[in-house]
Amino acid sequence: MDNPKVIFLIIDGLGDRPLSELGDLTPLEYAKTPNLDVIATEGINGLMTTLGRGKVPGSDVAHLTLFGYDIEKYYSGRGPIEIAGLGIKLQHGDVALRSNLGTLDTNSNLIVDRRAGRINDVSGLIKDLDGIEIDGVKFIVKPGTGHRAGVIMRGDGLSANITDADPHIDNVAPAMPKAKDDTKEAQRTVVILSKFIETAHKMLSDSDINRTRAKAGLPIANYLLVRGAGFYKSVPSFESRYSMRACAIAGAGLYKGVGSYLGMDILDVPGATGLPNTSIEAKFNAAKDSLPNYDFIFIHVKAPDSLAEDGNYMGKANFIERIDNAIKILFELKDVLLVITGDHSTPSALKKHSADPVPIVFRGPGVRKDNVTSFGERACAHGGQGYISGIDVMPEVVNLVGLAKLIGA
Amino acid sequence: MDNPKVIFLIIDGLGDRPLSELGDLTPLEYAKTPNLDVIATEGINGLMTTLGRGKVPGSDVAHLTLFGYDIEKYYSGRGPIEIAGLGIKLQHGDVALRSNLGTLDTNSNLIVDRRAGRINDVSGLIKDLDGIEIDGVKFIVKPGTGHRAGVIMRGDGLSANITDADPHIDNVAPAMPKAKDDTKEAQRTVVILSKFIETAHKMLSDSDINRTRAKAGLPIANYLLVRGAGFYKSVPSFESRYSMRACAIAGAGLYKGVGSYLGMDILDVPGATGLPNTSIEAKFNAAKDSLPNYDFIFIHVKAPDSLAEDGNYMGKANFIERIDNAIKILFELKDVLLVITGDHSTPSALKKHSADPVPIVFRGPGVRKDNVTSFGERACAHGGQGYISGIDVMPEVVNLVGLAKLIGA
Repeated sequence: MDNPKVIFLIIDGLGDRPLSELGDLTPLEYAKTPNLDVIATEGINGLMTTLGRGKVPGSDVAHLTLFGYDIEKYYSGRGPIEIAGLGIKLQHGDVALRSNLGTLDTNSNLIVDRRAGRINDVSGLIKDLDGIEIDGVKFIVKPGTGHRAGVIMRGDGLSANITDADPHIDNVAPAMPKAKDDTKEAQRTVVILSKFIETAHKMLSDSDINRTRAKAGLPIANYLLVRGAGFYKSVPSFESRYSMRACAIAGAGLYKGVGSYLGMDILDVPGATGLPNTSIEAKFNAAKDSLPNYDFIFIHVKAPDSLAEDGNYMGKANFIERIDNAIKILFELKDVLLVITGDHSTPSALKKHSADPVPIVFRGPGVRKDNVTSFGERACAHGGQGYISGIDVMPEVVNLVGLAKLIGA
Repeated sequence: MDNPKVIFLIIDGLGDRPLSELGDLTPLEYAKTPNLDVIATEGINGLMTTLGRGKVPGSDVAHLTLFGYDIEKYYSGRGPIEIAGLGIKLQHGDVALRSNLGTLDTNSNLIVDRRAGRINDVSGLIKDLDGIEIDGVKFIVKPGTGHRAGVIMRGDGLSANITDADPHIDNVAPAMPKAKDDTKEAQRTVVILSKFIETAHKMLSDSDINRTRAKAGLPIANYLLVRGAGFYKSVPSFESRYSMRACAIAGAGLYKGVGSYLGMDILDVPGATGLPNTSIEAKFNAAKDSLPNYDFIFIHVKAPDSLAEDGNYMGKANFIERIDNAIKILFELKDVLLVITGDHSTPSALKKHSADPVPIVFRGPGVRKDNVTSFGERACAHGGQGYISGIDVMPEVVNLVGLAKLIGA
């Protein structure tokens, strides 16, 4: 018998709290989910606390943990993860920063538009910035989505312990990055980065594209607003750790970033937007079609989290019903271990992430099916899996597909 | 009231996964176990993950953990544990190796039989090897079962980080042990051990016993195939840790070894073979008879693991029924805390150890009896003990018998 393949579906912000508006049910409990309920019935269920009880995870940290990567060891800020999502290969020692291209009004010295009129493509503008060297540090600059770009500093003796150059609001002066500690690495990094920001500002101001924009009355994109510096520490690939060839199917950049960060292939799925208008079917069909090529397929669905952060509990419930409707595509597949959970709870009444545990189900060959018959926060609390910590999920997966290594003799 | 005594029954490889051939039951669930079910009904039940979730334990590591010994601190390879089982007292700093006596064909320089025709007693052959000193290192050599012997290197500045001299297959040349690291201890150890292997080869070749074997047309036992080097780190005895006088009842060598390693008395029970033909009744009766002399009796039953490793799920279920039938001997005893679990799961479909949790029951005076009425993987998931990690089992035992020490005031 071959080892079963794994489809790992993370429904962002899946867990919630009971709402009086829903008759004291959570959006997941309120939603009609006949297919998820069949999966729960055929699987072993439990509740998952991503970082352990009472700890509220951010999305980056939650995903690293669910993939079995200890964040103490492998996480140093969102920058490197977002940058990895742009398809840039990072090297140990790189400092990675997210960036907007914004509009600096040179008379007032204020950032008048942090997104330069939501310019939809910055590749032409930043082309000449890519590859600049300053004091022995090479700058790699690549376009992100819309007004965004990724900036990498590559060289010896750098530090990511620096503040943002992005003021995060419009109509204030741009901040120069500052060292957060007294090390010479941090001091050196802010000096070099500041020189680069100045150089970039001059080059962007001189660019033909901006001249054309100015003539057209559009805000010019003449200033790099860098933020979220992170130091890339070399990360063993998912495949090297688990002996499973892996890919990621996600709409939103961060989740592609997590996949890239761990060396997964990123599948480009038309219709996958990371927004409520995403095509869930397109994602699930892409997983189905890719199954011959991969041992592990990570699918991310973002909208339940965003909807809950807007307090839109009914939108969240409806979106969960759409997932339920599409999930037949996955659960009809043979010899697959299907794992469904969330990265954390996002209670719609709180409108933010919480540490409430999230339902988890493992359904596939050999699992010890339990008595749970519906997929929900309260139902899964009685499952055979009990409480499971996020960091233990991948070891369970690896065990269930028979790939776990023996300790001792 | 005196503290209850403890009988700790470890059924090797007890846990399994549901099998369609057994109507989606595990061998334990399928087996008719009226007596184990009474014990579950009268006890507090749970699921035990030996090394924590998703971690697959070898038998040596599993047992040390179940007896409350942190393997990071107390485990360094199987050698010392097997050697302890030969009744040899190890000293801190000893390097212990398992060994076969094999047949080296001196013309071809090939090991033509790793077990020297399964010679059934090597004591006469190795007598003169015992006590040899080379470069300040004393070799202690004792007979094991059949073609096996234990070899101990005693002296300063040794290392166990060396490879096996045993090629593990027939008809290849013997390997000389090699250092696995650059330390001078490892280098020194392989030099001295290689000299010993040469010396032993000469002495064995000259032995009268081998001459007689050669004349009779039997393979001569002229070569020591050492393997599994481990460094013995002094281990506090079970009794010193728990204030309980302990003994071990086991058929297979490794489990006697674990008992010896922890300073338990090893009871010699005729009929206890470590094989499916073992007399379970003899073991349980030996426990019953020894109860006046001990506070803690460890009983090991091996066959369910071996049968599952052969994929023989029905044999496993039948053997579990035999255990159930014999167990009346134990559960009729008064003032005893009876603990029954496995060291790990061995799913019959996988034919190897897995990390799936194992049922555990504690039955005796004062336990918080729960609603579980049958002893099985799924039933025990709903027990009052919840999920328990292997390293926490002994602390629970010590607590239940009232011997746990107060922390704080």
